[in-house]
Amino acid sequence: MKIDVFDSTLRDGAQAQGISFSVSDKLKITKRLDELGIDFVEAGNPGSNQKDLEFFKEAKNLKLKNTKLVAFGSTRRCGIDAKDDLNLNALIEAETEYVCIFGKSSEFHVLNIINTTLEENLDMISSSIKFLISKGKKVFFDAEHFFDGYKSNRDYAIKSLKTAEEAGASCIILCDTNGGTFPNEMNEIIKDVKENISTKLGIHCHNDCGMAVALSIGSVVSGCTQVQGTFLGYGERCGNANLSAIIPNLELKLGYDVLPKGNISNLTSIAREVAEISNFKLAHNLPYVGSSAFAHKAGMHVDGVYKNSKSFEHINPEEVGNERKFLISEVAGKSTVLAKIKKIYPNIDKDDKRLSEIINTIKELEYSGYQFEGADASFELIVHKVFGNFKQFFEVVDFKTIGEGPSLIEKYSASAIIKVIVGDVTEVTAANGDGPVDALNQALRKAIGKFYPVLNKVSLADYKVRILDGKESATKATTRVIIESTDGNSSWSTVGVSKDIIEASFKALIDSIEYKLFKENN
Amino acid sequence: MKIDVFDSTLRDGAQAQGISFSVSDKLKITKRLDELGIDFVEAGNPGSNQKDLEFFKEAKNLKLKNTKLVAFGSTRRCGIDAKDDLNLNALIEAETEYVCIFGKSSEFHVLNIINTTLEENLDMISSSIKFLISKGKKVFFDAEHFFDGYKSNRDYAIKSLKTAEEAGASCIILCDTNGGTFPNEMNEIIKDVKENISTKLGIHCHNDCGMAVALSIGSVVSGCTQVQGTFLGYGERCGNANLSAIIPNLELKLGYDVLPKGNISNLTSIAREVAEISNFKLAHNLPYVGSSAFAHKAGMHVDGVYKNSKSFEHINPEEVGNERKFLISEVAGKSTVLAKIKKIYPNIDKDDKRLSEIINTIKELEYSGYQFEGADASFELIVHKVFGNFKQFFEVVDFKTIGEGPSLIEKYSASAIIKVIVGDVTEVTAANGDGPVDALNQALRKAIGKFYPVLNKVSLADYKVRILDGKESATKATTRVIIESTDGNSSWSTVGVSKDIIEASFKALIDSIEYKLFKENN
Repeated sequence: MKIDVFDSTLRDGAQAQGISFSVSDKLKITKRLDELGIDFVEAGNPGSNQKDLEFFKEAKNLKLKNTKLVAFGSTRRCGIDAKDDLNLNALIEAETEYVCIFGKSSEFHVLNIINTTLEENLDMISSSIKFLISKGKKVFFDAEHFFDGYKSNRDYAIKSLKTAEEAGASCIILCDTNGGTFPNEMNEIIKDVKENISTKLGIHCHNDCGMAVALSIGSVVSGCTQVQGTFLGYGERCGNANLSAIIPNLELKLGYDVLPKGNISNLTSIAREVAEISNFKLAHNLPYVGSSAFAHKAGMHVDGVYKNSKSFEHINPEEVGNERKFLISEVAGKSTVLAKIKKIYPNIDKDDKRLSEIINTIKELEYSGYQFEGADASFELIVHKVFGNFKQFFEVVDFKTIGEGPSLIEKYSASAIIKVIVGDVTEVTAANGDGPVDALNQALRKAIGKFYPVLNKVSLADYKVRILDGKESATKATTRVIIESTDGNSSWSTVGVSKDIIEASFKALIDSIEYKLFKENN
Repeated sequence: MKIDVFDSTLRDGAQAQGISFSVSDKLKITKRLDELGIDFVEAGNPGSNQKDLEFFKEAKNLKLKNTKLVAFGSTRRCGIDAKDDLNLNALIEAETEYVCIFGKSSEFHVLNIINTTLEENLDMISSSIKFLISKGKKVFFDAEHFFDGYKSNRDYAIKSLKTAEEAGASCIILCDTNGGTFPNEMNEIIKDVKENISTKLGIHCHNDCGMAVALSIGSVVSGCTQVQGTFLGYGERCGNANLSAIIPNLELKLGYDVLPKGNISNLTSIAREVAEISNFKLAHNLPYVGSSAFAHKAGMHVDGVYKNSKSFEHINPEEVGNERKFLISEVAGKSTVLAKIKKIYPNIDKDDKRLSEIINTIKELEYSGYQFEGADASFELIVHKVFGNFKQFFEVVDFKTIGEGPSLIEKYSASAIIKVIVGDVTEVTAANGDGPVDALNQALRKAIGKFYPVLNKVSLADYKVRILDGKESATKATTRVIIESTDGNSSWSTVGVSKDIIEASFKALIDSIEYKLFKENN
């Protein structure tokens, strides 16, 4: 049976502490979720946030293959005609085929929080859904606080669902908004709902009791065919139900139809990209997709896994694109590295001693904080260097940066001086910039671009900083910089690590330039 | 009904990536768990680890009020007499009243992993338990891989439990060692076990499917009276069942007797201490005990909680010693800001014009990239300034940073010079550091600490950088820095934003110092 996945990372996930998505972050995440084959992506609340309306406009240019975008809002306000409600009109302006609106199904909330009558609330549900349908929308109805509402006044809670059904909602989602419901009672309540409602049902759980995944699975088993959550469990308070665990639980363990065939093997890589775009470190112990999810440390366990991996693994990690790790050596598996090298030098053999040389280099760099998952160009440079195919295009003798503050003049708060040697010519150049990192970037390009004009077409598309061991050393902490460069046609990513953010940036910049020059000359 | 809690943070938890407890860490954690009222603490494997034997020796000096220490090991090896088995003898040497040994209850593991006969395995279980009992021990038996074993050969799995029962085990623990079992099947299996075994049953779950808490709760409901886990869910792969969620679920939601009366209000503070000793940051979204567990961000939620906290909270945070938080963000409205100000100035009215002044300041700052949800101290400073209660303690005239690279010398890749005025004294100071940000931090503290020695107790606990998206700007992009400072007793967070990372850091540092000085003087 097909179960629809509804991802709200960009809407409910954005309620999490520490998350603040830009429009471009949202576009990137949408593309990744589409690639994985998520059915619905709830991408924002155009009625309450101007930035979200901008997103929906730009998203029209995305060529989505699997995903339908959903705009989110609430039922009309009390005492206002649906057609005059600003929020409902903003939903129409988003121009999505699907919209999702939430309404109250709990007597307590109607009487005490939105302060209206039980009848008016039902009319708010009904008239809002009908208005949106009259404008050509397919409407999902989020029955907010449904389970708490059911427990205090079952009949009213069911009546709110019936109202949505009669108004024409395509799917009615039962929300455990406060996250306090337990598995047994949830299953019982869903059984009762199914006896009264024939519209498709969805489930929306929060993790306040640490059981959102199990609650979602139980609800699907009890008959819900749409499961809402956020891809990595981000969300207000303790987060939403974590889809990256729910999807493999449903597909691999219970045999439901969830993602397009074969796509589940991209689960891990997409989880890592979504975390990266959200500027969070992916929790290493996240089920299925965490870097430790198949990591073995106890001697007896490692021994057991050597004999037969199913001795201590509930699935084969490759099924979700993850890999087994033995924590004796904390590094990427040989087979991963081999597979990556084969993309560059297809004829390399697994016994080639250059393979172990590359693995050793990577190991050492990873130990000092490097990470090559988001920095393919830096990885490729290492490979070309070990294969002896890389010649140096330039040498940086030294650089100096000078920063001044408080920045009295708007521009040029910093300067950099750099000395490079190309062939037998020595060049000293200086540049100003917004802070020392930018000044150094400008100076470097100016100096080397003089000899290699192709670099003038190159610009930086993205610049990311991650503080690694923040807790121990604060401003002395190791810093990892990942830079994405572009020449208009293609883009490539490089990495640098140092305790000094300027040096870390400098290393990533050098890799970026060397990669471009290598590609031009080979 | 009384449910016993069995904490294995110090044993199974130590299998987690990144954990390495010293003997003194273990003693500290044991004391905390005893204070909370945990029944059993499994503290190590004296047969496989010398450090663990040392722990058990030192632990005898702890005056534990609630907790019984448990030494952990395995059944005797194949073909060895129990009385000659080194591991079993090490358990006796630990001199604890209780020991816990694991044995195989899965046919697959007996035949393929430990490579012995089904009969010998049963004798290993029986003779080991009898030997330990003859030495005066109370024995818990961990039936390893019980659920997987049951699924492939029910009769043998049950027979292994019967063997332990007949040998005299005080409690038999059903282990889902690989973490792959689902709630429904687990409940069914436990029902079957209860029809065959009359000894007390325990449950031991892992989180590989993201459902360990729900599985543990379901097992207690199905009749297990001991629940094993680790206090914060630490453990191999995806971790063990998280006791800090299981305990309040059982006690507050299902009405079981778990901790000594009243102790549950210490849950949050003990969770934070255990995380601190383990050298991990407590995940902010952890159920019940995380710092975001009762944090509200969406405007409508804040508004609801303000009217009645049960509108968006499943329990009162005080029940577990946690507290409500309102996060300030673009999505947050006037009521969030008001609620936060009320914590500082309880008498402010919602029509007070200082409220709108503060909201406008926040809005403007947010527009330029600030975010206050992780920076309460910066927010508080704004409030005190608008209320006219803040006096300036110092003035920074200017600063200069000088960075040099490639860093030839390991230390001091950068220097900073700063000029400050305090009262009518002008002070110029310089310092070196790991990169210009660190150098500036050192110089600033040196200069101002001269006048306000209380600052010498302050250090930075965390330093976070976020590059905000500015489409084409890369190294020119706006940078947001969040700094957490501590004086040993309390900690506070501040924020700074600029296109120049150094200036952004500088602003956050200034706020940190001003906040501390304000608190000292008011």
